[in-house]
Amino acid sequence: MSAPFFDRIALIGVGLIGSSIARALREKSPQTRIVACAKSEESLATVRRLGIADETTLDAAAAAERADLVVLATPLSAYADLARRMAPALRPGAIVTDVGSVKAAAIRALKPLLPKGVHFVPGHPVAGTEHSGPEAGFAELFRDRWCILVPLPETPPAAIAAVARLWEAFGMRVTEMDAAHHDKVLAMTSHLPHLIAYTIVGTATDLEESLKSEVIAFSAGGFRDFTRIAASDPTMWRDIFLNNREAVLEMLQRFTEDLTALQRAIRWGEGETLLDRFSRTREIRRGVIEAKQA
Amino acid sequence: MSAPFFDRIALIGVGLIGSSIARALREKSPQTRIVACAKSEESLATVRRLGIADETTLDAAAAAERADLVVLATPLSAYADLARRMAPALRPGAIVTDVGSVKAAAIRALKPLLPKGVHFVPGHPVAGTEHSGPEAGFAELFRDRWCILVPLPETPPAAIAAVARLWEAFGMRVTEMDAAHHDKVLAMTSHLPHLIAYTIVGTATDLEESLKSEVIAFSAGGFRDFTRIAASDPTMWRDIFLNNREAVLEMLQRFTEDLTALQRAIRWGEGETLLDRFSRTREIRRGVIEAKQA
Repeated sequence: MSAPFFDRIALIGVGLIGSSIARALREKSPQTRIVACAKSEESLATVRRLGIADETTLDAAAAAERADLVVLATPLSAYADLARRMAPALRPGAIVTDVGSVKAAAIRALKPLLPKGVHFVPGHPVAGTEHSGPEAGFAELFRDRWCILVPLPETPPAAIAAVARLWEAFGMRVTEMDAAHHDKVLAMTSHLPHLIAYTIVGTATDLEESLKSEVIAFSAGGFRDFTRIAASDPTMWRDIFLNNREAVLEMLQRFTEDLTALQRAIRWGEGETLLDRFSRTREIRRGVIEAKQA
Repeated sequence: MSAPFFDRIALIGVGLIGSSIARALREKSPQTRIVACAKSEESLATVRRLGIADETTLDAAAAAERADLVVLATPLSAYADLARRMAPALRPGAIVTDVGSVKAAAIRALKPLLPKGVHFVPGHPVAGTEHSGPEAGFAELFRDRWCILVPLPETPPAAIAAVARLWEAFGMRVTEMDAAHHDKVLAMTSHLPHLIAYTIVGTATDLEESLKSEVIAFSAGGFRDFTRIAASDPTMWRDIFLNNREAVLEMLQRFTEDLTALQRAIRWGEGETLLDRFSRTREIRRGVIEAKQA
């Protein structure tokens, strides 16, 4: 590893996040050699056409070999198998990081499989769009967003700092958190919103045909924002819910209680309750705007 | 009433929708005299400063006098009182329309109070943002959105056509529907999404302080879209839920059943069910994009 960044980075997975990293590296660290690994030849052909990697391979072990930094950017369910395949190829002193949305499960899957002398820096750049695949990425995706690092007690500070510098170069603000806390925060800010969006769009999908076409035509009343969120990658989201079960179920329980209270207020015509509940949500919106996350 | 539009329009209520109508009229029908009525002198002062009305008044009857078209653009709970006050002032042949999000209740409130010889064209321009007040409006709000008219059996076709021409001049596509059907479609596309957004932002508001600040910082993961929707005007939304109770409760029941099914799939680790549900929502998103409502 040399100043300012890394000599050779292996990107395992070149979807929205992986290909955005490749693009950001081209801009911010053009001297870094990028090795892209995907599970299909088709994705690799797209990466080559886009010119965002120096080498492409279907073989994770070949990608990991000689890399200073390996970035896992696949759905969570692929982590363990990939780690098993890469482990023998990783050079001592290499850093492995990931971008997964559930940190306790990511650590459970990867930590036991990584060889001694390889430094593991679990991470989560909190950025995304509803689009998937190598063509969906863009270098600016990370700008002004947060990246949460979840280092282990044994992770050397220099490895944490090197990964943090990379995300900062992409325009991110970097913070640290423990895995359980991260998973609880994200259950609320990301996992529950996606679950709800998938649900309501599914509810609309099941409507009688005559209603369904009108739901699409008149979606500008609020529904269309949910359709955008619910267009996110299904495999990635399946893995998130399977791997952050407890925190999601806890937040979902709170949400359901609150929804039931509002349902009751509507049924019994309790206008004061509705007005009160609808007025207090503005505080959070102001916070979001002030934190420049709007 | 003269070609192409109206000589004198009374806007009762100059919030987001009312003030957007005023701005669109200035652009598309500069010869129309605009009388703006609001319930506070402060709103009227803003309207005068913005220069989007020719006359301003706190008195709905004075505004309605001599108007060819009266547009009610207030929360639903104000309808009956306003109609009672305007009724004696309305000239024969005048058209009254409204922009409310619940049509059966709007008709129930207004129809019995409007004098014979005044033509009532219930309407709903399906457009909006999360912002409220006279300063939030803009002429382009209506462009490429749908306006749903809900004419009564006794409404003269010429009155319907005159109102339709106005919305079309603002860039809207106009369609007709009966009130019950309108209220059901909107319960799904607009009322339920707002109820859910208000709920989840409320759930976050109740979190422990340490979690809450982080929910704001990391809102880019999906939550922030909900905070935007939940920033909409509380009074307007209270009135919508109180006035479209049955349709909202029916759609909410369907949603809750679907959410419970997903909750169960998460609890029992049923990945196939999750993948299946998350995959089928894309059809609706494609429809929204093809209908140019994205």
